[in-house]
This record gives sequence, C-alpha cells and structure tokens, in this order.
Amino acid sequence: MQRYFVPRDNWRDDRVIITGEDAKHILRVMRMQDGDQIICSDNGGRTSLCEIVELGGNIVEVQVVKDVETQAEMPVFVTIAQGLPKGDKLEYIVQKGTELGAVSFFPFAADRSVVKWDEKKAVKKQERLEKIAKEAAEQSHRSRVPEIQKPGSFSDLLKMAEQYNIKIVAFEEEAKQRESSRFASVLNSASREDSILCVIGPEGGISEKEAISLREHGFVLCGLGPRILRTETAPLYMLSAISYHFELKG
Amino acid sequence: MQRYFVPRDNWRDDRVIITGEDAKHILRVMRMQDGDQIICSDNGGRTSLCEIVELGGNIVEVQVVKDVETQAEMPVFVTIAQGLPKGDKLEYIVQKGTELGAVSFFPFAADRSVVKWDEKKAVKKQERLEKIAKEAAEQSHRSRVPEIQKPGSFSDLLKMAEQYNIKIVAFEEEAKQRESSRFASVLNSASREDSILCVIGPEGGISEKEAISLREHGFVLCGLGPRILRTETAPLYMLSAISYHFELKG
Repeated sequence: MQRYFVPRDNWRDDRVIITGEDAKHILRVMRMQDGDQIICSDNGGRTSLCEIVELGGNIVEVQVVKDVETQAEMPVFVTIAQGLPKGDKLEYIVQKGTELGAVSFFPFAADRSVVKWDEKKAVKKQERLEKIAKEAAEQSHRSRVPEIQKPGSFSDLLKMAEQYNIKIVAFEEEAKQRESSRFASVLNSASREDSILCVIGPEGGISEKEAISLREHGFVLCGLGPRILRTETAPLYMLSAISYHFELKG
Repeated sequence: MQRYFVPRDNWRDDRVIITGEDAKHILRVMRMQDGDQIICSDNGGRTSLCEIVELGGNIVEVQVVKDVETQAEMPVFVTIAQGLPKGDKLEYIVQKGTELGAVSFFPFAADRSVVKWDEKKAVKKQERLEKIAKEAAEQSHRSRVPEIQKPGSFSDLLKMAEQYNIKIVAFEEEAKQRESSRFASVLNSASREDSILCVIGPEGGISEKEAISLREHGFVLCGLGPRILRTETAPLYMLSAISYHFELKG
C-alpha cells in the first residue's frame, strides 16, 4: 500500500490533510478516489492506515481507520558522516543508506575531497537529498525520515562527535593490514538505543592526519574486510553489518 | 599501485605479456615507462609485483619482481542469483557485488521480471558485465574475477542449485512477518569453503509460487531485517552480512 510522510501539523486527531507533492501524487499519479486507502506516518512515531474522505484541487483529506504498529527502525541510531564524494554519489549514499536504516547523514569536507560544497547550490542540493531520503523512507516502510545535516568541516565533525557514545572510522590502511576484529568488538560493546557515528572518507579514504586526529578524539579505526571498498560502498557495508548484528544475529 | 588481471596464457614463468585494453591503459592512460611497477594477477591465485621491461605498439612486457600474498577472497563462495531487474541495476549489482566478494552472478527470468533478456544483445551485455566485474575486482584488490553466468530460467536456477550446500532466498513476506533469525542461523551452520547460493527477486520480489518451489528445493526463506530493501540493495546487504559474519566477527 502507498505510504506518505505527513507533517505533524497536518494531523487533527483522526483527520489528516495532505498537500503539495504528495497530494499531486495521490491525485494525478495514483489516480485515487474516495474510499481508497493509504498509510500515513507523522515522522514522529505515529503510523496509521487511512481512508480518503475528500479530494479536490491539490488537497487530499484522509480519515484514520486505525493506527498500525511499525517497528522498522534500527535498535541503534546510526549517523553516516561522509567525506564529500564526487558526482552524484552522495545522492546514492542517502538513498541506499536510508533503506538500510541510517537516522542521519552529515557530509563533510575531507582532506581528500576533490569536490567543494557549492554554497550557491547548497539549499537546492540539501532539498534534493531530503526528497531522496523521504522517498526511500516511504519505499522501505520506515517510520522516520533520516535527517540531512548541513555539510561541515572536519572540525565540525569533531565537535558533532562529542554527542556520540560510539565512534567508528572506516580506514583502508587498517584493512590492508588485515585489521579484522575492531568493528565487531565495537558493535559487541554497543547496546540498544546507543548512538553510533560512522565516518567514511571520500575517494582515496581519510588522510593519515585525519586518522590520527580521529583516534585522539575517541574514534575506533576499523577495517571492513580484506577487499578495498569504494567510498559509496563502505557506508552500505557498515549499515548492513550493523543491521545484521542487532536485528538478525539476535 | 595499478592492478591488472592477465590471462594465465600470457604468463611465461616470470615474464608476463599484457595486450589489448590493459596495454592501452598502461601506455595511454597511465603513461607508464620502463621500470614502472604494477600488480598482475592470473585470476588463478597468483598475484605478482611486476616491473615494465618493454613497451611498444599495444604490447607491454613485464618481469615479475616478486609474488605477493593476497588474501582478499571470502572464506565462503557466494553466488548471487538475481531476478532480472529493470534498467542498469544489474550492472550496478555486479559492480558492488564484486567489491563485496561474490564469486559468481546468475541472472534469471523471474515471475515478476518485467524486462526480458534480449538474445540479440545478450553477447554484448554479457561482455559489458564481465568488463565491469574485472574492473571492480582490480579496484577492490581481489585475486579473482567473479564469473558472469549466462542468464537462465527459474528451472535453470533450480538445476544449478543442486551444486550448492547452502541456499538462501531473500523473501519480503518473511521480513514483513518479522522473520529475523533464519539468515543468521544458516550462516552459523555454514563453514569455510562452503558454497552459498543467494536468490534475490526482481522489483516486487519473488512470487508466492517461486517461494513455495524454492522451499521444496531446500532453500531457506529469510527476512533481511524490518525494512523493505530494493532489489539492487538486497544482494549488497547479504554479501556485507556474510563478510561481517565470516571475515570480521571472527
């Protein structure tokens, strides 16, 4: 069944008003009618089966039939701090990372980032990433849309890291040296509700200087297996492994 | 250092002859000279540090300096049987799946596959997938290029499955029913050197009919966590979890 995230403000008890893109999608793309059903989430924990009671112009009004339990969120809160990669890789990381359960994305300008975040295009770019995250969250049946944070510097990353009790860095050099136990050890030391910060470098990985500084700030440098992963593959590996560890391994 | 897979036939003891695309790449793209070093793999277990001793026309001749130990292959042999997906998703799955350690890919026409494998374009398409696998294997420092199998039918899949001792299907319905223990149980029951066949449906997943038939043929239907993954994300999740289970968890 089609799912939509509707801002909390558009909920009045058991009535939900849908406007904008989502209303257009319901009316023009799905061609829905009175009585058709959809799932609405308020991005704050409430997810409800709803029935269309009124549509007109670009507004759709739905009535909650019943609240539904959805537990599609990870038991730990994973933020992906991604060194700015080339091209549209960031969009790809946000889409796949949302499917795989990340709650937040923080792009940062790393030593080896060749692209710079264009301040002129920053707002448009952020909106685009937020749209990708919303759609991926709807498609993967999540009850929460991940946050896209404003891109920052390496020192912004260090500041932000203070809020996290578990801090991991994917470090290629460790992989080359066959480091293979730290990632699992860290996950074993974590408990439900923990906030985990995963740092991934851009193409070429994080620099030696960044690695030293991150270690000094309490990050654990981890290898992700013997194969060298691309910058856009490493976050997916980390999220999949974290899901397997906490959601499947039991 | 740049890596190239060179067919066994081009090795004569400690001399290796590089031709074709790779020679062009060394000469025109990398602009290498006598004495420059590269890594050559014979795709059969031998990987060597080599030095360029002669170049001319479209041929590069290198001398083995020393054989190097590379252990970048998974301790288990994972084949990804992928229900034919739309667009260029198959190329994407082959590229990322190679980085993540798959040894073979088998595309099959599933009940819900909307695209058909165009026999006219089949050869070109297969060559393209093989090129993507070779480049991804070089980039991720693997000692083996995964095999791209000729696409087949669902019954071809069942025939092929007889050679595998561990058979897993990603099944969305199980995920929706919160099935969360089988995937880990199967991996716990597996040992090194085992051959694992992972079946992933196309968009919309495998059909009820296919699920029943697969179960009858000894496949284990597994959920991959509470979020619904896209067809191109599921194989990456499975490979990452298998790597984490066998290569990192220890």
